[in-house]
Amino acid sequence: MALKLYGVPASTCTGRVLFCLHEKQADFELIPVNLMAGEHKQPAFIAKNPFGQIPALEDDDLTLFESRAITAYVAEKLKDTGSDLLRHSNPKEAALVKIWMEVESQSYNPAIGPIFYQAFIAPMRGQSADQAVIDANLEKLEKVLDVYEDRLSITKYLAGDFYSLADLHHLSYTHYFMKTPYAKVINERPHVKAWWEDISSRPASKKVMEGMSFGAK
Amino acid sequence: MALKLYGVPASTCTGRVLFCLHEKQADFELIPVNLMAGEHKQPAFIAKNPFGQIPALEDDDLTLFESRAITAYVAEKLKDTGSDLLRHSNPKEAALVKIWMEVESQSYNPAIGPIFYQAFIAPMRGQSADQAVIDANLEKLEKVLDVYEDRLSITKYLAGDFYSLADLHHLSYTHYFMKTPYAKVINERPHVKAWWEDISSRPASKKVMEGMSFGAK
Repeated sequence: MALKLYGVPASTCTGRVLFCLHEKQADFELIPVNLMAGEHKQPAFIAKNPFGQIPALEDDDLTLFESRAITAYVAEKLKDTGSDLLRHSNPKEAALVKIWMEVESQSYNPAIGPIFYQAFIAPMRGQSADQAVIDANLEKLEKVLDVYEDRLSITKYLAGDFYSLADLHHLSYTHYFMKTPYAKVINERPHVKAWWEDISSRPASKKVMEGMSFGAK
Repeated sequence: MALKLYGVPASTCTGRVLFCLHEKQADFELIPVNLMAGEHKQPAFIAKNPFGQIPALEDDDLTLFESRAITAYVAEKLKDTGSDLLRHSNPKEAALVKIWMEVESQSYNPAIGPIFYQAFIAPMRGQSADQAVIDANLEKLEKVLDVYEDRLSITKYLAGDFYSLADLHHLSYTHYFMKTPYAKVINERPHVKAWWEDISSRPASKKVMEGMSFGAK
C-alpha cells in the first residue's frame, strides 16, 4: 500500500519529507491539509499528530509525525531503493550522517528558521519583518556556515563524499533563504556555495522545489 | 578499547551521553574538559568538535560530537548489552522512538533550555535571570506537557510501554528544572509526574545525577 503524506508542498517540513520520498523513489500519495481552514487543528488531524502540525505520514496502521523522524523512517524502510541516505552498510559513515543531521537540527535550523519566518511568514500574516531578529540570527548562521565552509573544503558533502539525509535536511529552508537578500552569506563561501548548487540541482530536489513557493499555490 | 568521553558531568549535554553509557553498561573513560580555562575552544578540542562544544566521544579512530548523535551511535553499537533503547527488532516501535526523540529535540528542549539558562547559567555569569524569557518558555513548555500528559495516560513511556532513548534524552534538563520553583508544571500533571519519578529513579539515572550539580563540582 502506498505511503500517505498529509501536508502542503510549500511547507518547509512537508518539503523535507518530499525530498526524501523522491530520493527513495517511494510510492506515495500527497493528501493536502487545508491550513487556512485550520484543518491541522481539528480532531481528525490531531489524531495523527497531537501537536497539530504538518506533515504526518501513514504507512498502513503506523502514523508518524516530526519531519526528521519521518525521513529517517522512510530512508530505513526503503534502504534498498533510490539513494543510500543513511549509509547502512558502513557504521562509521552512518555515525557521521547522524552527527551532521544533528548539526542541522541543533545549529543550522535554529538560526535559519527565524530568518525564514521574518522574511516569508510575518508578511503573510500582515506583520512587518523584525530586522533585529533577522540580524541576530544571520550572525548565528554565519558562524555555522564558517564551520560548514571548513568541512566542505575537506569532504564534498557534510557527512563525507556522499549525499545523505544530513544534506537533504537543509534543502527546505535554504531553498527559501536563497530568495532573500541574505543569500550572500551562502554565496560568499565558495565551498558552501558549490555544495548548495550541487544538492539543490539533484533531480529529486528540483522536482520538489517546483512546488515550494508562497503565493500562487 | 574503551570509549573516551570528553566533557563535564554537570553539563546537560555530557549528562545526556552519560545516562546512555550507563544504561548500556558501556566500558568508557570520562576525560574532563576545563571549560573555565576555555579548553573547549582550543585547537586540540576543536579538532574533535569544530563547534567547540562538549561533549565529544572517541571510539578508536572515530570521533563523534552532538550528544543526541552520540547516544544513538552508542545505543546502536551496543545493541546487545544493557537496556534496549532503540527497539531494533521492532520497526514500528523503533519508528515511535524516533518520533518522540524528535519531539524532545524540536519542542521540549527549545522550551526548557532557555529556562535552564536563566535559572542556572545566567546567575553563574553574574547576570540576573530574565523573568520574561522564563515566562514565555514556561507557556511553551506547558503546551508540550499537555500533549505528554495525554500520551502518558495511554503508554507508560513516551514511545510505548518501554523505556527508550526518547525518555532518556529528557533527563538532563528536567533534572535541573525540578530544582526550580517551576517544577510544579511537571508535578501538577499526574501522568507526567509518575513518568518523571520512574525515569529519574532508574539506577543509571541516579548514578549520573549524583554528578549533576552546579556549585561543588
